[in-house]
Amino acid sequence: MGGNSFGEAFRITTWGESHGKAIGVTVDGCPAGLELCEADIQAELDRRRPGQSIVTSPREEADRIEILSGVFNGRTTGTPISMLVQNVDVDPSKYESLRHTPRPGHADFTYEVKYGLRDWRGGGRSSARETIGRVAGGAIAKKLLSSQKIEILGHVIQVGGIIANKVTLDQIRENVEQNPVRCADMETAERMCQYIKKVQAEADSIGGIVEIIALSVPAGVGEPVFDKLDADLAKALMSIGSVKGVEIGVGFGCATMRGSEMNDPFVLREGVIVTETNNAGGILGGISNGMPIVCRIAVKPTPSIEKPQKTVDLAEKKETEIQIKGRHDPCICPRIVPVAEAMVALVLADHMLRGGFIPRTYR
Amino acid sequence: MGGNSFGEAFRITTWGESHGKAIGVTVDGCPAGLELCEADIQAELDRRRPGQSIVTSPREEADRIEILSGVFNGRTTGTPISMLVQNVDVDPSKYESLRHTPRPGHADFTYEVKYGLRDWRGGGRSSARETIGRVAGGAIAKKLLSSQKIEILGHVIQVGGIIANKVTLDQIRENVEQNPVRCADMETAERMCQYIKKVQAEADSIGGIVEIIALSVPAGVGEPVFDKLDADLAKALMSIGSVKGVEIGVGFGCATMRGSEMNDPFVLREGVIVTETNNAGGILGGISNGMPIVCRIAVKPTPSIEKPQKTVDLAEKKETEIQIKGRHDPCICPRIVPVAEAMVALVLADHMLRGGFIPRTYR
Amino acid sequence: MGGNSFGEAFRITTWGESHGKAIGVTVDGCPAGLELCEADIQAELDRRRPGQSIVTSPREEADRIEILSGVFNGRTTGTPISMLVQNVDVDPSKYESLRHTPRPGHADFTYEVKYGLRDWRGGGRSSARETIGRVAGGAIAKKLLSSQKIEILGHVIQVGGIIANKVTLDQIRENVEQNPVRCADMETAERMCQYIKKVQAEADSIGGIVEIIALSVPAGVGEPVFDKLDADLAKALMSIGSVKGVEIGVGFGCATMRGSEMNDPFVLREGVIVTETNNAGGILGGISNGMPIVCRIAVKPTPSIEKPQKTVDLAEKKETEIQIKGRHDPCICPRIVPVAEAMVALVLADHMLRGGFIPRTYR
Amino acid sequence: MGGNSFGEAFRITTWGESHGKAIGVTVDGCPAGLELCEADIQAELDRRRPGQSIVTSPREEADRIEILSGVFNGRTTGTPISMLVQNVDVDPSKYESLRHTPRPGHADFTYEVKYGLRDWRGGGRSSARETIGRVAGGAIAKKLLSSQKIEILGHVIQVGGIIANKVTLDQIRENVEQNPVRCADMETAERMCQYIKKVQAEADSIGGIVEIIALSVPAGVGEPVFDKLDADLAKALMSIGSVKGVEIGVGFGCATMRGSEMNDPFVLREGVIVTETNNAGGILGGISNGMPIVCRIAVKPTPSIEKPQKTVDLAEKKETEIQIKGRHDPCICPRIVPVAEAMVALVLADHMLRGGFIPRTYR
Repeated sequence: MGGNSFGEAFRITTWGESHGKAIGVTVDGCPAGLELCEADIQAELDRRRPGQSIVTSPREEADRIEILSGVFNGRTTGTPISMLVQNVDVDPSKYESLRHTPRPGHADFTYEVKYGLRDWRGGGRSSARETIGRVAGGAIAKKLLSSQKIEILGHVIQVGGIIANKVTLDQIRENVEQNPVRCADMETAERMCQYIKKVQAEADSIGGIVEIIALSVPAGVGEPVFDKLDADLAKALMSIGSVKGVEIGVGFGCATMRGSEMNDPFVLREGVIVTETNNAGGILGGISNGMPIVCRIAVKPTPSIEKPQKTVDLAEKKETEIQIKGRHDPCICPRIVPVAEAMVALVLADHMLRGGFIPRTYR
Repeated sequence: MGGNSFGEAFRITTWGESHGKAIGVTVDGCPAGLELCEADIQAELDRRRPGQSIVTSPREEADRIEILSGVFNGRTTGTPISMLVQNVDVDPSKYESLRHTPRPGHADFTYEVKYGLRDWRGGGRSSARETIGRVAGGAIAKKLLSSQKIEILGHVIQVGGIIANKVTLDQIRENVEQNPVRCADMETAERMCQYIKKVQAEADSIGGIVEIIALSVPAGVGEPVFDKLDADLAKALMSIGSVKGVEIGVGFGCATMRGSEMNDPFVLREGVIVTETNNAGGILGGISNGMPIVCRIAVKPTPSIEKPQKTVDLAEKKETEIQIKGRHDPCICPRIVPVAEAMVALVLADHMLRGGFIPRTYR
Repeated sequence: MGGNSFGEAFRITTWGESHGKAIGVTVDGCPAGLELCEADIQAELDRRRPGQSIVTSPREEADRIEILSGVFNGRTTGTPISMLVQNVDVDPSKYESLRHTPRPGHADFTYEVKYGLRDWRGGGRSSARETIGRVAGGAIAKKLLSSQKIEILGHVIQVGGIIANKVTLDQIRENVEQNPVRCADMETAERMCQYIKKVQAEADSIGGIVEIIALSVPAGVGEPVFDKLDADLAKALMSIGSVKGVEIGVGFGCATMRGSEMNDPFVLREGVIVTETNNAGGILGGISNGMPIVCRIAVKPTPSIEKPQKTVDLAEKKETEIQIKGRHDPCICPRIVPVAEAMVALVLADHMLRGGFIPRTYR
Repeated sequence: MGGNSFGEAFRITTWGESHGKAIGVTVDGCPAGLELCEADIQAELDRRRPGQSIVTSPREEADRIEILSGVFNGRTTGTPISMLVQNVDVDPSKYESLRHTPRPGHADFTYEVKYGLRDWRGGGRSSARETIGRVAGGAIAKKLLSSQKIEILGHVIQVGGIIANKVTLDQIRENVEQNPVRCADMETAERMCQYIKKVQAEADSIGGIVEIIALSVPAGVGEPVFDKLDADLAKALMSIGSVKGVEIGVGFGCATMRGSEMNDPFVLREGVIVTETNNAGGILGGISNGMPIVCRIAVKPTPSIEKPQKTVDLAEKKETEIQIKGRHDPCICPRIVPVAEAMVALVLADHMLRGGFIPRTYR
């Protein structure tokens, strides 16, 4: 049983390795009649691709998307949408020396044990390039959600010990794409940027925290008791490489709270039932309550660092040391933003279809 | 598409409401030939049931399990195992007054919106009694895992601002069931207990953090790129009512770490490849690496509190105030321990079957 | 991976053995707000139960259904509906002698090989009593479909070499429950009945053919290219014990037809597009076309016969002979009618929910 | 919820339209370490492609397969295998006139109703070109099965009223690819061929029957009570376009049989338990019994015929007449043989993985 599909009603299946011929995704379950073109997908891939800024990997990939099926005369037909991106800047030579020495913090060792062999070029399937399929599928999910007025915003709120100030939704909308760190607090963004460059100069990497907010999700979305909306968001986000924690609403902050603080009181605002606070992060009992959905993820420092590291030579079965050259992001947070947004969009599109909130066909 | 099944190869389907006739679960996919009796299940249910200590709800439920199918002459037959518990101490009268006033922090409002009607007695399906099915199914998963020498340990590590000291595995094994809080640090446990009673006396409730550790899981378990082991653990744990955050290994701590600190070096110990540290929490690239699997969950304060709270009367569509009587746990952490263990066991049993680590038939 | 669940959007999970404590089913995904009571289910179970006529097994089972969850104040709540029937007339003594000698045509041998052990009492899980879960789940599906004006009719059209004359829909509606064979052609029904009794007197059994028709299914139901409506009907019907063939529309008759005969011409009737003939049986390209859906199944003669039969003693590994006593139907066709109707109803309810033809909530 | 994936443990997801850019499939769940190259796939596609003989469509498609992922150094890596075929001979002009007039017997009408719009070029997704994905995925399944010594044989046994004589397994192995009809009885094959040409000359088409046999499947494969081996075979085969009936073993022949004839007696042959006859077609209670698995499918006459046919103009909503030009097979049976073999292989690979009969990794 492979694990390369995600979603029930809106389902993506991704495939492809870092240095293989191509990387792609098939989307099954997208309603017919949705306007869709390659530019819709490309815009999101451009936010994900390497080489986009001074703090990202210099690998040169235009990541041009091709839609191969499921779209006719500018509209989806209800049949599977297959998309792919050719791998271009493929240079496995830097990885040759690492064939037998698993990189600490990477999946080399576990893939080797699980499968008995692995495509060692650039991490193969476990490379961050795998997320192209997520972002491409997520772009369609976003298009679907925007037809329902749902908006998804992602931003970096912490890099190492540097924590962004509270920002407004408008600051997120306006500032995130204006700086290489994707932090909505422009001033802190600049400090984060300097810090990342410093860490990189020290042949090291750094972790951080990313927040994703979904606005205008109607109340009633989510399927208890296992496919709760927060449960599926947790799975979706934790399935992204480098993510080590997920929280909803106040998250771990709830540990020190009293019920009387935590419980969001119900009130009427212009005839609509809302909650006065949003500690719950928009989800109660696994079902959306109409308030903004708020998730945060802990992103570990990129495991690929130039500093020498201890490892074991699998062929010779002895301890050794490696130094990773290659092309890497010193902090993966900025590039995880579009990936995390995509995963949230996929969960919401899936659950809104499951719950009957989106029509099967746009006419 | 209902959401009441969990797992692929080892799959549970749960059903039942707080004040309905019974609560139960069907397990499909359990290998044949496993020794199993009701006492195996009962032992886990006894750890979950209300009324077990001074800090839990006084609802009187013996929660006697009945196995109705799938077991013959003391062994599983490979066919579905159906189990149920009768609801006995059913007293919906206290909930009658809350029929139209959703309790803050509860699922009353979202169920009402989603389904258009709801069983309002004791929270209906969204009650914590729903976890009986999880624990019963998890007990079989544990039995299966123990045949592979896998052990699962859960303990409370924080209640409000009170944080337990670091403990050894043996302290967890020995102490957790020796105090009502299920904290392995006996001294802190006592303080937590006093604190919970104080909070309760103040008509309030308090949150906390629970840790679950799985030992002896072989390397190679997990199915990238979506059904990663950590992704499914995140879903499993986040699907438990009251959980607002999940982390693996150092979790949110990774945000402030450098790659050179975070990466666990591979070393040889008695000929076996292990990692020197375990910041990853036993999972790399979504696949177990042979080290202990470590998860932590943030548990919110029980939403049912006696303090007056603001809400909206749905029938009259106006703001009002409620006071919740009923029978409630001032801190749900101690009782979430067996539930969280069950969910971890279910994920591991499922993934070990998917990966071919457990035989389909014990002969 | 167990195989005891069926359906995606409307999903049943069945459990239970012939001589275990009980037999049951959980329905997940039924919309909320549907009126439902035990009598709705009982009516269908009464059509399935043994002892109902001179040509069925004399096992005495009232097969009283209990609804344990998912219904509140006479309406479904959108949560799982658990139902069970206690086994009452349990007498495994007749099976004791067959413990080691698999009955030809039965699943004894294959269960033994697959699972390594089996509940040998009355066939255990492979008993026809397993279909109680199907019929109970199907009764809810029928209720759901009837809210959409869909009607499902089943009747026996052949027993051995005796073939019923063509009948009208009204004859099916009126006559099927008026004779023990469930044949809508009353005259032929009488002959079938006599023939079945003769076969039984000869310590033998006989096969037949059952037809199921679904009326008023709207056009557009079905999910190509694998979950086509006819594909899922084929699976559903072939999964019933004793069924060895499934056909849609003219079925195997198409082998000798020309395209010009087979193709159903589209015509306008009172402004509605229909087909002049219905060779397709209401399905084109895996999607309903608005015409009646017509399926037929080949039902093998009951394998339990009193005539001596050759088999192998598994314990002693030598050839031997057995004679089956027990309580059996000489022709299973009449009792398969409600089971086949249930399976068709389950497929249609599932696909209509998947396609958005049924609301998620009745208000 | 799309329906374009098939299988649980060995799962294919197909995509692509007749006149789109390409057609393809992703295989998820294939064990790692299996030797695989494009030639393995191409051999099967060559048996399926148009233009291969005098009785098939003259569309010129080389159908060259490209493997894009999941294979490294000639072996599968356990990650998804993505494959595609470019569409080359794309000429939608002949279909332009049919945009608003659904072809009788085709899916034009039902796709239009279901999706509200459709890719009308060559039938779009409902074209027989869709089966490229099935055959490519099935080729990998066959490779996997052949590592377990399982062989799958398909042959045409009836075209119109012409019925092949009984053949031996060796005749099937040797003769099927030696004549354009894929009938193992060479003499009848010649007559079938003449008949097909005659039918074509009459601007018509003809149906037939195809048989598929799987040899050396071990006993114990199949997952009752819904995912029975025969149930999944029925679904797999009925999901192929043009198939209107499926039978296992004696199939519809069982209707006129007595239990004493139908039941296959168990006997010992060289210490192995086999059945003396194989009326069951190798499956008892939904589980393989070690005997050859025998399926037959009814294939309808190709709906595309040159004879004038009645239909309705959807744009003008009035009755009209059409004549289909295009490029078509007068009898689809010969080309359905490799497709049906592929579907049987997919079901067996899936169930053997589910049942633990195939290792997760070849080392």
